[in-house]
Amino acid sequence: MTSVLPTPDLLYLLAGDPAELAETVAGIQSADLADTLNRLPPEAAGKVISALPFDVAVQVLDQPELDRRAELFETMDTAVASTLIEAMSADQQAEIFRQLGKVERARLIKTLDQPTREVLTFLLQYPPNTAGGIMTTEFVGVPARWTVDESLRYINRVGRAKETVYAIFVLDDAGGLMHVVSLRELIQAERSQIVALVGDQRDPLSVGPLVDREDAARLISKYNLLAIPVVDEKKHVMGIVTVDDVIDTLLEELTEDVQKFGGMEALDAPYMQISFWSMIKKRGGWLSALFLGEMLTATAMGYFEHEISKAVVLALFIPLIISSGGNSGSQATSLIIRAMALREVTLRDWWRVAMRELPTGLALGVLLGIVGLLRILLWQKLGFYDYGTHFILVAATISCSLIGVVTFGSLAGSMLPFLLRRLGFDPASASAPFVATMVDVTGIIIYFSVAYVILRGTLL
Amino acid sequence: MTSVLPTPDLLYLLAGDPAELAETVAGIQSADLADTLNRLPPEAAGKVISALPFDVAVQVLDQPELDRRAELFETMDTAVASTLIEAMSADQQAEIFRQLGKVERARLIKTLDQPTREVLTFLLQYPPNTAGGIMTTEFVGVPARWTVDESLRYINRVGRAKETVYAIFVLDDAGGLMHVVSLRELIQAERSQIVALVGDQRDPLSVGPLVDREDAARLISKYNLLAIPVVDEKKHVMGIVTVDDVIDTLLEELTEDVQKFGGMEALDAPYMQISFWSMIKKRGGWLSALFLGEMLTATAMGYFEHEISKAVVLALFIPLIISSGGNSGSQATSLIIRAMALREVTLRDWWRVAMRELPTGLALGVLLGIVGLLRILLWQKLGFYDYGTHFILVAATISCSLIGVVTFGSLAGSMLPFLLRRLGFDPASASAPFVATMVDVTGIIIYFSVAYVILRGTLL
Repeated sequence: MTSVLPTPDLLYLLAGDPAELAETVAGIQSADLADTLNRLPPEAAGKVISALPFDVAVQVLDQPELDRRAELFETMDTAVASTLIEAMSADQQAEIFRQLGKVERARLIKTLDQPTREVLTFLLQYPPNTAGGIMTTEFVGVPARWTVDESLRYINRVGRAKETVYAIFVLDDAGGLMHVVSLRELIQAERSQIVALVGDQRDPLSVGPLVDREDAARLISKYNLLAIPVVDEKKHVMGIVTVDDVIDTLLEELTEDVQKFGGMEALDAPYMQISFWSMIKKRGGWLSALFLGEMLTATAMGYFEHEISKAVVLALFIPLIISSGGNSGSQATSLIIRAMALREVTLRDWWRVAMRELPTGLALGVLLGIVGLLRILLWQKLGFYDYGTHFILVAATISCSLIGVVTFGSLAGSMLPFLLRRLGFDPASASAPFVATMVDVTGIIIYFSVAYVILRGTLL
Repeated sequence: MTSVLPTPDLLYLLAGDPAELAETVAGIQSADLADTLNRLPPEAAGKVISALPFDVAVQVLDQPELDRRAELFETMDTAVASTLIEAMSADQQAEIFRQLGKVERARLIKTLDQPTREVLTFLLQYPPNTAGGIMTTEFVGVPARWTVDESLRYINRVGRAKETVYAIFVLDDAGGLMHVVSLRELIQAERSQIVALVGDQRDPLSVGPLVDREDAARLISKYNLLAIPVVDEKKHVMGIVTVDDVIDTLLEELTEDVQKFGGMEALDAPYMQISFWSMIKKRGGWLSALFLGEMLTATAMGYFEHEISKAVVLALFIPLIISSGGNSGSQATSLIIRAMALREVTLRDWWRVAMRELPTGLALGVLLGIVGLLRILLWQKLGFYDYGTHFILVAATISCSLIGVVTFGSLAGSMLPFLLRRLGFDPASASAPFVATMVDVTGIIIYFSVAYVILRGTLL
């Protein structure tokens, strides 16, 4: 189904006849060629690209799946590099320039032709996580007074250089967006008809350049669009975000969200390719922060050292109790993070969510409390372990603590994403380890408070 | 930008003039109309749909964003329901029939016309998570001997009833798939040209009906396709999976993955809509399983009760140490789950991953070990806490345990997804709480073993 050329073959061809290389690569999809190049060291990959037929080289470089694109350009001859960049699509040019080092960027931009330089400067002003940051300027716009026939002939002429010809933007005399016509509607319309009268006459959906790219993706997905126009305040079309940008965006966000939820910075690179020190940096930061937070458990435990020495049996259940709180918190957080991302839940729903999580947490706490109670009584009766004369009171302590800790965990875990969003942070930073750390400290305090109430006068 | 009609307005219009209702809804996007209907009780929504102009009703019902679609049909008159279903697109028909109860399904399918019934029976044989399960049968196929002109006229005639006209499948005399032409290529070609000679002549990408829908999504994304054909063994096109199915699939998987990683069953419904008992069931199952696993910590701690009673100071650091192992494990797991989902890492890479995680875990362990060491020495020197005469040995115990636990956590966390996949489970079931539970028990054993070695003869 997919055909990745084995690396040695490619290198062998490189040494030989250029015509043979051209013929071989003509049968391969650009995305597969990118896969093959990803397995070569950057210098070798750079050489292969320089040796490829020009069109094929441009197509391969246009693949976001090609790794280390900026690096590849750095290894190439400047003249070759700038000719290739000029032929690439505008959004991919911008993407590569974002990855280039400052020096290299300044050096390369000077060698580009005037139009490319202008588009690049224009696109690079938008942050990469915005609609402006992923848009491309290669869209088809036609004046409203043109006929269908004129429009189709125009598309035939310029179509090759455009990212998509399936969404056509009908513009008024001032260049403002009037509506969007699909190619499907255009080819089904009367040839002599004016495009202003073809297709859906409703106000078209559009986004501003600074709208979050995820929101642009959500609109494309919700309204089943092939592209959404990015417009300025005067409704001038600045560019378009296409459906394949959306998929790339979604896949990237998916990876980032899961990594963040795992309690680390997003890697922004394939696992197998990231360097040892970047890995340590991305993981060590959060791990140390969580460690410092978790140190509060040692402090909290310090206050109860006397109780522990009097009733060592209490220590046995500390991991069980705090982890149950962390687990229920982690469940609640994952639910709310996704509900927020899908806009099922917004900031002002916090109270409704709290009123759902409180009974849910309580019910789950009672469930675990009963299991915990049975476990201790059973072990005692069967003689697996001796929890002492007051084993019933110990069991009651564990059981009540579980109810308290699981309820608190569910509530705290569900409220944390709201709190983070309220403070202006990404709610997805509320990772499972973050929640667990927060609940651990409180869990210890709940546990020993319950123990103090139930066991005072007997064990304590 | 998006215009959701306030619910009372819609109900008001419903009571009044049908023409007025038709005019109002004509200005609204189907996806927004679906949003409005989602806020009504099913009976009211069913009534609104029955009152809508037929075309609008079909478009709204075709929106996967419309909740409770099966339920809506159950509230409708059977004759109305079957006319609406017949006009819907095939993949959405199948989706709704999958959600219907057995009785309702049998009742409704009998009322449909012959062609609809046949397509439905055909589509329903594929599981919902396969390419066959999300494909639609409404694609454009043309015989290879047709000219461009004939093909375009055919598209004009049948286009309205097709899911997409942008990918056209060129078929040989036996009906087998030869290649795919885009509408873009078709309109740019000479009118008298034979379609067999237009566009990319390479073997087209395709999938079998039982391929995982995520794999179909990945191909569409990788090769920037608008649709991928689903073919049988004889290369006959059975249907197509389009790019908007892919986005829906990706968003669904994203939500499922985050929820599973949070340590629960995927909800399969919006957070605010799921019933209390479904919620308890989805969360209580895993929570109880994790609780039973975590009980092993109490068992493990039981073995060290004697040590704890001799050196209570050791108990203070238990939460700190086991949570550090859990956190590093959760990081490693989230990395590997994503790397596997993106096919960056496959089953046979386990050894390479282990050889990456071992030094990474060691380095992270040393980092936390140093922080932990400094914390204890500092608190002792500054008089915040008295860890006793042997505080240096205690600090050394904590430090060495952290190195061991974090290294083990990273290694275990990264290997768990491999183990699950090897055993035939979804690697994404390796949730953060699952890893934490696994590492907690081992963490206790590592901690007390290190303590035994370092503190024997002094505290122990």
